[in-house]
Formats: sequence, structure tokens, C-alpha cells
Amino acid sequence: METKEAIWHGGDLATAKALFPQAPEPWIDLSTGINPIPYPLPQLPLSLWQRLPGKSDEAALLAAARKAYRIRPQSGLVAAPGTQILIELLPRLIPAANVAVLGPTYGEHAPAWRKAGAIVREIADLAEIGDANVVVLVNPNNPDGRVVAQETLVQLAGLLGARGGLLVVDEAFADFAPETSLLPILPEGALVLRSFGKAYGLAGLRLGFAVGEERFTDALQAMLGPWAVAGPALHVGAVALGDAQWLSAAGEARAADSKRLDALLAGQGRVVGGTVLYRLIETPQAPSLFERLGRAGIYVRRFQHDPCRLRFGLPGHEAGWTRLVQALKSA
Amino acid sequence: METKEAIWHGGDLATAKALFPQAPEPWIDLSTGINPIPYPLPQLPLSLWQRLPGKSDEAALLAAARKAYRIRPQSGLVAAPGTQILIELLPRLIPAANVAVLGPTYGEHAPAWRKAGAIVREIADLAEIGDANVVVLVNPNNPDGRVVAQETLVQLAGLLGARGGLLVVDEAFADFAPETSLLPILPEGALVLRSFGKAYGLAGLRLGFAVGEERFTDALQAMLGPWAVAGPALHVGAVALGDAQWLSAAGEARAADSKRLDALLAGQGRVVGGTVLYRLIETPQAPSLFERLGRAGIYVRRFQHDPCRLRFGLPGHEAGWTRLVQALKSA
Repeated sequence: METKEAIWHGGDLATAKALFPQAPEPWIDLSTGINPIPYPLPQLPLSLWQRLPGKSDEAALLAAARKAYRIRPQSGLVAAPGTQILIELLPRLIPAANVAVLGPTYGEHAPAWRKAGAIVREIADLAEIGDANVVVLVNPNNPDGRVVAQETLVQLAGLLGARGGLLVVDEAFADFAPETSLLPILPEGALVLRSFGKAYGLAGLRLGFAVGEERFTDALQAMLGPWAVAGPALHVGAVALGDAQWLSAAGEARAADSKRLDALLAGQGRVVGGTVLYRLIETPQAPSLFERLGRAGIYVRRFQHDPCRLRFGLPGHEAGWTRLVQALKSA
Repeated sequence: METKEAIWHGGDLATAKALFPQAPEPWIDLSTGINPIPYPLPQLPLSLWQRLPGKSDEAALLAAARKAYRIRPQSGLVAAPGTQILIELLPRLIPAANVAVLGPTYGEHAPAWRKAGAIVREIADLAEIGDANVVVLVNPNNPDGRVVAQETLVQLAGLLGARGGLLVVDEAFADFAPETSLLPILPEGALVLRSFGKAYGLAGLRLGFAVGEERFTDALQAMLGPWAVAGPALHVGAVALGDAQWLSAAGEARAADSKRLDALLAGQGRVVGGTVLYRLIETPQAPSLFERLGRAGIYVRRFQHDPCRLRFGLPGHEAGWTRLVQALKSA
């Protein structure tokens, strides 16, 4: 194994329990950006579990994804068991890459390129890309919700494409901000990642997509091979991505939740950004607030390289909201 | 996309329906080697679908796999969303490989190595490995059930390890023939693949494993990244692999089924091998038998490069047996 610093993630309550063994159960997990109200699971016929996923199952999923994400007919599309594996495999498309990651952002992008032997820099502004031939950004960004304008992305894709490189746009949190998506106008030189699990609240299902030039999506498909996505995931994904009404209602409900959260957090620090699925606050008291919430059985996301920030996901039920209100009051 | 001949597989009934549009429904699918009586799905808490798979979920699966497969403590172990993706990624462990695949066998091994730039030969006998530094074999073999003795495999692993290469042993069908498994004595220079879906009848779940030297399993894990296996698959796998009693009873039941099948097939051709999950027959009448069965709504496995052979999986219910008996009689 590599002897590197572990990458922190939300969602692993074992860590929370180890840090705060005396905390009351059940834990309220606000450490992720996953929608706490999942898409209702459809009936899953036993045959989805029994047989190898068929070509028609995959075709139905891809058709639903093309429509939901407004993917151009000429763009290639590949489904994978989660976006993470695409992040791991992407660097194999561009040998000897010189990579700029617009940060701070999701922690897995930079190490995936480093593992593949690329030169990787984290930049704070796109003006700093220098001679990079690959730029990676998350749009809207995690954790601060920053959005890069489409015209900037199109220009950047053209520049990087001309360098034989690639603009990677991770749209893991674009479902509830469809106006930010590059997909309806996806230019050559850009590759977009989409995650099913966050907006639909089903991260354990493992379903993600890459969209881009066919030479890239074909190469990713070849590395994944046939049947990489499980039968139940193909079916749930096809049904959920075909349900525009649910997405729209969920987006409105989570937007209301995130406003409610902002109001609660206003007394704790400055809300510096986020999406409708999480809010980011900045305060010198962040470490003590993390401790206080932890002792109350509420797990939020802290950041290795920015101890003054905390990210809050949304409670999924009134009992969770009540416990959060009380824990924040007990300051 | 590559312009190559498609690799034939069992299990895609869309192909059967296209070939025999007039056949009676429902189809009896005997084209796979998947146990037709699956492990009973345990209750799946919604949290398995909602949250990212946790470290403890994966640890439970790996512990169950170590015990069920009798894996040595010093062997590395990695879980993946099906064995197929491991077959795709394995060639990246051995650059510039010179590969001998013991054939005829499962059709995906050779192309995976070719895609990665390796030189690949199919050999009919291990005496023909020549200067290969990678040898791939399926044990027991698909479709003919041939078993290579453990002492031969140990010797071969030593030879290939000394060449800087690898012996790849695909034990997809070893669950019901545990005495054939190399895992309890796994030597350096050998890497074993195990498939969950076939013996447990849950191929759509997508779960497979690689076992070998840690440098290899760590490299595979790094390519897959965290959370490649879905939450439900981790849970079902841990429960099922921990149920030795079910495996033993299923093995006895399928052995009885395969004897029943042999008796039915004796009049059709020579049964040349198989495992308890499928039987292989050889007859010059194979193409006409395939047609006759297809017209009766029974799909069996034929082979691109051996038109005289057919592989029969096991019917999963009495109605299936009855239809098979009738279709075979109507010759």
C-alpha cells in the first residue's frame, strides 16, 4: 500500500463513532452531500439479481441518461459502477499528463492522476493553468459550490484539446443545477462525469457516467468491460433518470431545506457557499463546533487542509433537524 | 469501437429471441453456467442503497471470502464489481506480456490481454507455453470442465514468477469443486480469480475477487478505487459466503441435476465434460440440435470455433426439465 495521508471522506460513521464513543445513537450523519430523501426504490425482479445484465437493460439506462442529462447525440456515453472508478481510470487516457486541479475540491481527483504518473498541481484560479494539458474541476464545486461559466469551460476545452489534453468537468452536483451543465453544448476536448447516487440519494447503488468524445468513452468502456454495472443499478437508474417530475420536486424540497440550514448556521459562522445538498461555513470556531456536534451524535465534514471550514449535509427527518438545532444552541 | 468479431456469451436472451422469433415463451435459458437456484436474498436495509459502502461493510465481505475460499493469511485479496473487470485490468499489471491462454476456454481472457498490447497465443496443452511469461487458464475449465492438477499449477507459478510474469487461474467454477482450488496453497507467481455470481446464482449482483501477492492485489485495488462494489453486493456476498451449509446442499443438489442432465443428453451426443453447473456435448448434429431446441424456446450455448459442441446449463424448475425432455424427444 502507498504510505500516503489518507483522503478524508464523509459518510463513514465508523470514524465518527471512534472519535466520539460516548455520543448518543443513532448518529445524524450530515457528513455527506447525498440527498437524505432517496428516490423510492422500484420493485426489483429477482431476475435482475440472477442473470448477467443484458444489452437491453444497459441500453434502457443509457437512453434515460441521455435524456435526463441532455446529452448531445454525437457525444459518447459510458456507465460505470460509480464515478470513482472513472476518476481512477481517466488518467490512463492521457499518458504523461500535466494536470491542474482547480481546488480546493473533491479529494480523489489529484491522487488518481498522481498514481498514474502525471504531474499534478492544485490551482486556485483558472488563470494559473500554465502549460497544463489536463484541467480538472468540479462544477458546481464541492465543497464551496463555485460555478465556472459555460463560456469559460468551452474556451478551456478548446485550448486543452489543441494541446492533446482534456478538460475534466465533474458534475456530481449538477442534477439540481441543470443550468450549470456543459452537456447540452459539450465541446470536443471536454469530458463530463455524472454521479447518480448523490441527487437520487442512492450512493450505495454505485452508478456513474462519463460523457465525451467517443474515443475516450470507448476506451473507458474497454477498461470496464461488459457487465460492470449491476443489474439492479441498471434498472433503478433507468427508472429514476426517467422520472423528471421526482427530480424537480426533490430539487425544490432540498432548496427549501438548504435555506432552513443556512438560517440555523448563520449564528455559527459565515456561510461561504454550497449547493442545495450541502452548505459550507467558515469560522475560527470550526474545530470546537465539530467537537460539540460530534459529542451530540451529529457528524459533519471537516477538511484536512482548512480547519476553519465545515460542510453540513441536510438532515433527512424532523428528529434530525431538532437534534441539530439543540446541538447548535448548546454553544 | 474495435471492428472485431463479437465474443459470444450465454445469457442474453435478446439474441435467442431474434434467432427464433416464433419460439414459445417463456424461454428456458440453459445458455449459462449460472446456478438456476439462487442463494435466497437476505433483507437489504435501505441504508445499503443510500450511503457509500463503509469500510466495515467491505471488511465483513473480505473476511467471509477469506474463510469460504480458504485464502492464506499472507495472500492479498481484492473485491470487484464482477470478475470481468478484473480480467480487463489484470493485463495492466504485467507490461509487455507474452501470454499463453490454455484453450478453448472463456472467451474474454485473450482479448483483454490483446487490448493491452500483449502477444497472445491460445495453446491446447501446457507443454506448449514456450517463452510465455503469463499463462491464463480456467480451472475447472469452461466449457469442458478440464482440471489441471495443483502440483502442475504450483510448478508453473514458480516458472512464470521467475520470468517476472504470472499464472492466472480463473476459478469461476471452483465453488462446487473446492478440492481443485489453488487458494489454500497459493504460491507466489499465481493470481486466482473467484466469481460470486455463478455458484450463488446471482450474476446480476456483480461480485468477484482476485487473490494473489499483495503487490498485485494492491495495484488492482488502486485501479478500482474505493466503493467499486455496491452496498447490497457487499452485504449479500458476506451473508452468502458465510453460509457453508447452503453451499454444500446446493452442490449436492446441482450434482444430482447434472447427472439427470447427462442421462437426457446421452442420446444426443457424447458428453465430453463440464461441471455440476453445465455439461458439454459433442455431436456432428449440434447445429441442428441448437435449431430444434431454439424453436422449442430452449436456449443453449454454441461455440463460434467448434460447431460440433453445445453446452447445456441446468433447468431451474420441473417445467423446464419437462420442456427439455420433450424437445430432445422430438428429434
